[in-house]
Amino acid sequence: MNNQKRLIVDMDGVLADIYGQLIRYELQSSGTELFRENLYGQDEIVAFPNGRTHANEKGFFRTAPVIEDAVDTLKELSQHYEIFIVSAAMEFPNSLEDKYHWLDEHFDFIPWKNIVLCGDKRVIRGDIMIDDHFKNLDYFDGTTLLFEQPHNSEKDNNGHRRVRNWKEIRDLLL
Amino acid sequence: MNNQKRLIVDMDGVLADIYGQLIRYELQSSGTELFRENLYGQDEIVAFPNGRTHANEKGFFRTAPVIEDAVDTLKELSQHYEIFIVSAAMEFPNSLEDKYHWLDEHFDFIPWKNIVLCGDKRVIRGDIMIDDHFKNLDYFDGTTLLFEQPHNSEKDNNGHRRVRNWKEIRDLLL
Repeated sequence: MNNQKRLIVDMDGVLADIYGQLIRYELQSSGTELFRENLYGQDEIVAFPNGRTHANEKGFFRTAPVIEDAVDTLKELSQHYEIFIVSAAMEFPNSLEDKYHWLDEHFDFIPWKNIVLCGDKRVIRGDIMIDDHFKNLDYFDGTTLLFEQPHNSEKDNNGHRRVRNWKEIRDLLL
Repeated sequence: MNNQKRLIVDMDGVLADIYGQLIRYELQSSGTELFRENLYGQDEIVAFPNGRTHANEKGFFRTAPVIEDAVDTLKELSQHYEIFIVSAAMEFPNSLEDKYHWLDEHFDFIPWKNIVLCGDKRVIRGDIMIDDHFKNLDYFDGTTLLFEQPHNSEKDNNGHRRVRNWKEIRDLLL
């Protein structure tokens, strides 16, 4: 059996740059140019009124950019932790296969056994969770790291440790 | 918060009649007629040498028959338990969206938040698990019910309670 600690890693906003992708889709579909630095403190649904529509389009998650340093850091962490990628994807059923193939392209060192696409993460158990949403971290029985994104940037940490990028995660966990 | 016990229900071989579907696919693809009653005691990979190929075909899981009494019993159980459908689907990425839509068709009383498509179920927490595979039940921290299928029918229960159909589950849990 595996005695490594189990690290639960979120996808959207932690591995995949969903802000970058939403900004690109908004520009393409309506011509409106949004700037990340103007979105701090706004909930995602306020920042991107068409976000849910785009998120259910085939290809949206398949072509999302990867967050800086996520690949190299996660590869290094995978030598020391049992890593599970856990994404709350079920609200957008068209994303399910896109997410699988995106992970297979960018994070091919994560085996298919260690991927979870779910609705509600309360059902997940592990030792450490990295996520950008309080609704996931608040119910986790373990150490929690809040990955900073504009939607949580002006909120209280609510007991979670805030990390701003993958270099900070590396320093904490290795 | 929800104070109901959490019931983790497997899909293949518990809600979906995968034996029936594999027998149908084998007949259609090779003309070989298999009979369920001849497959008792055989592992699935022995009983269905082409099973993996069929399982990754689009439509295979989408059109699987529903196991007898599963819909009515699960609907009744959903009044008393917090139900999560958890399927180890990730080995067959073409099944992911088919499985979502199959559940949406036959079990529309299960919200999308309560669906999990994963690789390895060791990451799942709950109070009761119903599954036909030891590899899932053996690592679960809670009450376990082994749903009888030909592949497990001649094996020792390995500490799990064996159930033969959904009527037995109803009698146990309600």
